[in-house]
Amino acid sequence: MSEPHTESSARAGLAFSRELRIEWGDCDPAGIVFYPRYFAFFDANTAYLFEAAGLPKHELVRAYDIVGLPLVDVQAKFMAPSRFGDRITIESAVAEWRRSSVVIEHRISREGRLAVQGAETRVWAGNDPERPDALKVRPIPQEVIDRFTAR
Amino acid sequence: MSEPHTESSARAGLAFSRELRIEWGDCDPAGIVFYPRYFAFFDANTAYLFEAAGLPKHELVRAYDIVGLPLVDVQAKFMAPSRFGDRITIESAVAEWRRSSVVIEHRISREGRLAVQGAETRVWAGNDPERPDALKVRPIPQEVIDRFTAR
Amino acid sequence: MSEPHTESSARAGLAFSRELRIEWGDCDPAGIVFYPRYFAFFDANTAYLFEAAGLPKHELVRAYDIVGLPLVDVQAKFMAPSRFGDRITIESAVAEWRRSSVVIEHRISREGRLAVQGAETRVWAGNDPERPDALKVRPIPQEVIDRFTAR
Amino acid sequence: MSEPHTESSARAGLAFSRELRIEWGDCDPAGIVFYPRYFAFFDANTAYLFEAAGLPKHELVRAYDIVGLPLVDVQAKFMAPSRFGDRITIESAVAEWRRSSVVIEHRISREGRLAVQGAETRVWAGNDPERPDALKVRPIPQEVIDRFTAR
Repeated sequence: MSEPHTESSARAGLAFSRELRIEWGDCDPAGIVFYPRYFAFFDANTAYLFEAAGLPKHELVRAYDIVGLPLVDVQAKFMAPSRFGDRITIESAVAEWRRSSVVIEHRISREGRLAVQGAETRVWAGNDPERPDALKVRPIPQEVIDRFTAR
Repeated sequence: MSEPHTESSARAGLAFSRELRIEWGDCDPAGIVFYPRYFAFFDANTAYLFEAAGLPKHELVRAYDIVGLPLVDVQAKFMAPSRFGDRITIESAVAEWRRSSVVIEHRISREGRLAVQGAETRVWAGNDPERPDALKVRPIPQEVIDRFTAR
Repeated sequence: MSEPHTESSARAGLAFSRELRIEWGDCDPAGIVFYPRYFAFFDANTAYLFEAAGLPKHELVRAYDIVGLPLVDVQAKFMAPSRFGDRITIESAVAEWRRSSVVIEHRISREGRLAVQGAETRVWAGNDPERPDALKVRPIPQEVIDRFTAR
Repeated sequence: MSEPHTESSARAGLAFSRELRIEWGDCDPAGIVFYPRYFAFFDANTAYLFEAAGLPKHELVRAYDIVGLPLVDVQAKFMAPSRFGDRITIESAVAEWRRSSVVIEHRISREGRLAVQGAETRVWAGNDPERPDALKVRPIPQEVIDRFTAR
């Protein structure tokens, strides 16, 4: 369950935040969230962030002929475990725009305390016309960037 | 994202319904939901249904010394695929109470049309005191059943 | 970890069997396999079964212009739980060929005892040329069926 | 499917390597591995590495009264996508032992080329006797470390 919020962050850019309940299937035999699940939460929040900017991923894929925004680098720090039934908040925002990549920061908090912090670096990539099954990185259109910063 | 609802169904028992967005990671290379994900949705909805009855699973586990409600049988029919970004509604209710098991029906719809229908049969089970790592089925307390039907 | 085997079953058709270790992330806070994971095992075994028949799914998709073999019905019975570190065997075979669908039976055993039994009904489906985002069921080519029964 | 290998790496410590097939359910609508799956592969390989050292996780949990080896930090770089049906090799080894934490390096390669590189930092943690639902970090016993380096 989640309550989505779209807001301006201190970074003066668009941020997206939602609340989520930790489900039974998110947790492992130690009773805490199985850590790959946090990355599924990050991945979904990135899509919701782009949607909040007026760029839903499925339109993005069609409009710009890209395969999505494949990850090239990800980092996360885990400060506190979460358990089945916990309500967490995931807040995401663009930390940096580069020529053909973007860094998205994610902050998961529980009861007001930071529990997980992560950063995804994603590239703007389409299929390579010359090499089947390979991807080709392209410059991010300025109009895309503007949708995050112009607000 | 979801908007939970608690309501009385035509079965005159408690029902639980929530809306959910299909996420990128829920889908497979055919672009449709990878079917095991529907069972994760069912499993979570069963927990939300019990919570709506005033019996959150983590309290249930503690109060009745059970390990949860392990599945013994599940069935599902898939009428229509769902895709990334789709909004689906999952409605769940108890279809039948038996001595030590319960049948929970799940109905997933999209744009008002039934897309997936499923039924889980779950048992009320604790750890077997005489056989480590084995489960022992027990009768479901009447007070548990009453919470679903007394409304 | 798995050791694949291809063998003729009592049904006189092709069967595929592999051994698999239950991993930490397959299990829930009760310490047993989170049941949707079994369906991921089934789904993968169906793909391996077709591959053993000389029809790897990615070639199948290209050669016959289908989206895969979407599920229309699935059933499973759970007799015994499995836990982290357990070695299970998943054996799969076609139980029935129909005009445009196929029933695949899966049997998961642990230490020689049947633990989970399931049946998937899948359809031979391509994209509907007249309705975007819809699927169209087609007859299964006899040459596909022959690969399972001619051995 | 996998073929496990235990070998001494250039780091003069124990390494664990296995081969794995990319399954349909590991992939997303872009046809490439949904990235959280790589972390599930890492997590499982860490468990197999400890098992190869004679310390299977379930015995580790019992023998040392720890909840497992919770992650505090993880990083990964993604050089090349993998697709359904691909065979990848995941090689894992301890890169550094610290007082109460350990850094495990993972290298995923496909057709001899490095595709994903990752590092998990995990802590040796048990339940905190003074704070329920909290974890307490402890020093890693020397006998545990010896099992990785004495070979």
